[in-house]
Amino acid sequence: MNTQTENNSLLTEPLIKFFRGRNFAFLGTLNKDGSPQVTPTWIDIEEKDHEVMIIVNTAMDRIKQKNVSRDPRVSISIVDEDNPYSMVTIKGRVIEQTTEGADDHIDKLAKKYLNTERYPAHSPNVKRIILKIKPGKIFYIPPRYTEYLQKIK
Amino acid sequence: MNTQTENNSLLTEPLIKFFRGRNFAFLGTLNKDGSPQVTPTWIDIEEKDHEVMIIVNTAMDRIKQKNVSRDPRVSISIVDEDNPYSMVTIKGRVIEQTTEGADDHIDKLAKKYLNTERYPAHSPNVKRIILKIKPGKIFYIPPRYTEYLQKIK
Repeated sequence: MNTQTENNSLLTEPLIKFFRGRNFAFLGTLNKDGSPQVTPTWIDIEEKDHEVMIIVNTAMDRIKQKNVSRDPRVSISIVDEDNPYSMVTIKGRVIEQTTEGADDHIDKLAKKYLNTERYPAHSPNVKRIILKIKPGKIFYIPPRYTEYLQKIK
Repeated sequence: MNTQTENNSLLTEPLIKFFRGRNFAFLGTLNKDGSPQVTPTWIDIEEKDHEVMIIVNTAMDRIKQKNVSRDPRVSISIVDEDNPYSMVTIKGRVIEQTTEGADDHIDKLAKKYLNTERYPAHSPNVKRIILKIKPGKIFYIPPRYTEYLQKIK
């Protein structure tokens, strides 16, 4: 083993695959009454100053944005589009929110997920905002049940 | 348009489609420290005495089973396998847990999800348990971005 930290390993196989593909992330946040909320979302990852951040682009005043502003603790679950029995769950914490570059960034995600140059739902009434999530504990399950999936397809 | 509907409508179109397909549900629960936890899971639905219940089959002492035993509040998010931009989120509450019939029920789910007669991961060391979730508020988004998805496929 090298000196890789938990976080850095998100950028290497097998985990990077979850962020490279068109997989949705399911983001768990906490409502005002403490109950859980799960929202499907596009997902991105970035490295800056040797720190890996998970990036979610949402809109100001959406439930998840309000939730993480109150309590930054999140859970992220992603299953592999090629084999949904391979999955990763990441505990994390929103450590920064910024509107800077958020419009350009949603266009980048639209390119990845919809293969279009411009996000189709831009609106003057919607203020985009980027949530930066510092990953904590990571739980990964490698592909399973491949033999069954081949028969279903 | 986003719509909110009554519980019974889970059994009618367009919502029944989410439970008929091989869609995974992403189940949000609460950890001991109150932080959110999201787990992908197979999902089923049943009607009994005119009440619709959402059914999750897990194993005793898994995180989600321990979590809902402490706090029964859950959030369920499902995206449509045919168009992941169509989605439903359901607030709910685990009102019953039972091991009765849980082994047979996981075989039924294995038939639906893996098209096999018997769940491949039965183990004498794993006690299966059914969580019955009473649905509350439902949030539904009909299919979007169909024109982009057709080009990607």
